[in-house]
Amino acid sequence: MTDWETEISDSGEDAVVRGTPLEEVMDMEFADSIWLLLTGEKPSEKESEMFNTILSSSIDHGVGNPSTVSARTVQSGGNDMNTSVAAGVLALGDKHGGAIEDCMEMLQNGQAAEEVVEEYLESGKTIPGIGHKVYKDEDPRAQKIFGKADELNLSGEAVEKMKSIREVFAEEKVELVINVDGAIAAVMSDLGWDHRLGKGLFIIARTPGLVAHVREEMDEEDFRREDGDYTGE
Amino acid sequence: MTDWETEISDSGEDAVVRGTPLEEVMDMEFADSIWLLLTGEKPSEKESEMFNTILSSSIDHGVGNPSTVSARTVQSGGNDMNTSVAAGVLALGDKHGGAIEDCMEMLQNGQAAEEVVEEYLESGKTIPGIGHKVYKDEDPRAQKIFGKADELNLSGEAVEKMKSIREVFAEEKVELVINVDGAIAAVMSDLGWDHRLGKGLFIIARTPGLVAHVREEMDEEDFRREDGDYTGE
Amino acid sequence: MTDWETEISDSGEDAVVRGTPLEEVMDMEFADSIWLLLTGEKPSEKESEMFNTILSSSIDHGVGNPSTVSARTVQSGGNDMNTSVAAGVLALGDKHGGAIEDCMEMLQNGQAAEEVVEEYLESGKTIPGIGHKVYKDEDPRAQKIFGKADELNLSGEAVEKMKSIREVFAEEKVELVINVDGAIAAVMSDLGWDHRLGKGLFIIARTPGLVAHVREEMDEEDFRREDGDYTGE
Amino acid sequence: MTDWETEISDSGEDAVVRGTPLEEVMDMEFADSIWLLLTGEKPSEKESEMFNTILSSSIDHGVGNPSTVSARTVQSGGNDMNTSVAAGVLALGDKHGGAIEDCMEMLQNGQAAEEVVEEYLESGKTIPGIGHKVYKDEDPRAQKIFGKADELNLSGEAVEKMKSIREVFAEEKVELVINVDGAIAAVMSDLGWDHRLGKGLFIIARTPGLVAHVREEMDEEDFRREDGDYTGE
Repeated sequence: MTDWETEISDSGEDAVVRGTPLEEVMDMEFADSIWLLLTGEKPSEKESEMFNTILSSSIDHGVGNPSTVSARTVQSGGNDMNTSVAAGVLALGDKHGGAIEDCMEMLQNGQAAEEVVEEYLESGKTIPGIGHKVYKDEDPRAQKIFGKADELNLSGEAVEKMKSIREVFAEEKVELVINVDGAIAAVMSDLGWDHRLGKGLFIIARTPGLVAHVREEMDEEDFRREDGDYTGE
Repeated sequence: MTDWETEISDSGEDAVVRGTPLEEVMDMEFADSIWLLLTGEKPSEKESEMFNTILSSSIDHGVGNPSTVSARTVQSGGNDMNTSVAAGVLALGDKHGGAIEDCMEMLQNGQAAEEVVEEYLESGKTIPGIGHKVYKDEDPRAQKIFGKADELNLSGEAVEKMKSIREVFAEEKVELVINVDGAIAAVMSDLGWDHRLGKGLFIIARTPGLVAHVREEMDEEDFRREDGDYTGE
Repeated sequence: MTDWETEISDSGEDAVVRGTPLEEVMDMEFADSIWLLLTGEKPSEKESEMFNTILSSSIDHGVGNPSTVSARTVQSGGNDMNTSVAAGVLALGDKHGGAIEDCMEMLQNGQAAEEVVEEYLESGKTIPGIGHKVYKDEDPRAQKIFGKADELNLSGEAVEKMKSIREVFAEEKVELVINVDGAIAAVMSDLGWDHRLGKGLFIIARTPGLVAHVREEMDEEDFRREDGDYTGE
Repeated sequence: MTDWETEISDSGEDAVVRGTPLEEVMDMEFADSIWLLLTGEKPSEKESEMFNTILSSSIDHGVGNPSTVSARTVQSGGNDMNTSVAAGVLALGDKHGGAIEDCMEMLQNGQAAEEVVEEYLESGKTIPGIGHKVYKDEDPRAQKIFGKADELNLSGEAVEKMKSIREVFAEEKVELVINVDGAIAAVMSDLGWDHRLGKGLFIIARTPGLVAHVREEMDEEDFRREDGDYTGE
């Protein structure tokens, strides 16, 4: 039998989150509680402002992406809120929402920008955090995040490294923008967050969007059926 | 084929949330963005303060409850963050985190407190929102929520009805406290939230806790195996 | 702490399924092992033949239905086999694959056909197990199942009741066919299966289909994105 | 928008599985239908017998493993059959049920046994398919599978390679048994199955077990709560 132990929280009369009594946590902003829960420390005022911007930036992005399609399709099969939202979270695999974590890992791996670019060029893989389908000069959301990080004096080595990677890649191959995933990954790294929380961060930010879509789907009568073609013999 | 339409948000260059451009949403607190996303309106300052308290109150409650056990067990089977968090969300069924939604429905059904209590007494079911294993005189978290709602001048008919239900039940059967689910349900109802968002609200608040537990479980080497007994022939 | 006890199976050196040593189970057909596992008894030869037909009838039904769309969409987000298949199983809610269980419950509730029809007519709900989009005279798969049940001498009271419900409904309202869900529900009821296993039966039968679709999706490069429209202001 | 196309099956009046009309599939044993669905061919009689043994061998293994714990815990939170079974499937990650797929990949990678063992010894990883907690001389289920494969004249290169890997490892490091995962992986490889179906095979075989456990859990009144300890400050 396994032991169920945690350093995160306790419940009941002794309810605490990372050593802070729950009743005190109830006086904190939600974003600050999330920060405390995941890092063990309360954020400074500047960290809090930055973190709110990053969470809000990912809250929802339209109806056609895999997680929303999955959540709404499952609801339409006659399922409750929790089952449907979970189906949306399941869709958030390596290719959907995964760039933040990959990019944080790249920024935290101790390599110089030149080494990073060289390795990616050799492997033939895409560098996470740069490139955008539409924006060729700059991604306005990435700019907003970088601007706020500068204003709040929170930019550090990871932001620097992200920008260097973009420059080295431009010299070696092609000019691309830093996208919003790259900006989030860089700033969160400078805020001291472990890359293994990158996907979790995105899940926290996007769950409200999934709840909203499942609620909207509840008003649709029929279940979701796509036109499918059989291409076998 | 179904049409994929939504009134919630758009993505890409036209990214908006409920008509508000995403870049403007990025200047909002995360809790306020959630409110906008789910109700279509920005909260007032008072509503925002109340909402932050309610979200923070449910952020995590120890390691032994079904959603945490499920999320950590799935991680231990060798799974990624999204798969493991989703397993935790799945556990949040009717009996686990469901009292808020049931209680909101009860408070929004148009019946008088007396009718509500009578129906529950006849059905033999438990009234959601009252009763606590430990607290017999008052639940301090419920008190804190009611206190803040009064201070901010946000208490209304639903809070009133919740208190009446407790009183009628005390006269008819037994004296119980209003618990934290009852306080949340009453205040969220007075804030104008549809009961069909009750479970979603809890999922949003608890997802950060699930992320924290899955991250902690990643540091455990072995997978979770319970001692099981075969009691067949 | 809860006790983990089961009457179903044991593992390790003492591995058994419902009292039958695992090594003996390994000499059984898979469908017979499923029957043993779920009922506690080995099926007769006739029951086995009938059960194989019912399982095979539901193994896969094209690409456009909610469970397949959900499973393939989640795979396309960059997820493993288990995560993707689970997303497909999640879609199998009350409205998708749920008719078998609802129909079994109706056939096992002790009411006469007339009472059943009357109650459904009053409630305005659809009677599970009758009606088909395409087939107006007879559903060939339902006919095949009923034919085999007759041949094998396995038809009993539930098949009788299902046919009576169809007839009473035809007299009261409109002529409809018994569909494949109705035939499965009736025969499984006559085979002594508890209605609470109706959905489980369908999940067992359809899981191979979900595995096949997820495997096929692995060969698709891009992830699934639907054209979505924002219809807000 | 993506195209929904498949070579696997069609539905409605044209229902087929891999080109075989569904009504013909309904006359096939369930295990044979699974084989057809996943490989595109009907199995020979010998292949069918072997496949039934392999599926039945994995149908259920007691109550304490992660997938069963996860499925039952989610049911206990107040969830339906599909939601609970899906939570069990989610637990079947790389470390739980993953050895069959890893072992199939190893047997299908074109390397000689010596190369395989050398690489594993260098990497420090465990070789999939060998070793058992209890059995030191032979694993009776692996023996049964190998015995049947020999009897049916189905053993080929992969079985050979598996045995060589065991021998080379015994010479280089330590004597271990081939376990049931290794036997399944070897025989399925000789039957021509793609390693990317290894996990799917296990999911198909184990889903009936998850259904049985969820059904049993429905009779338990309380929800699953483990004793948890808070070890933070």
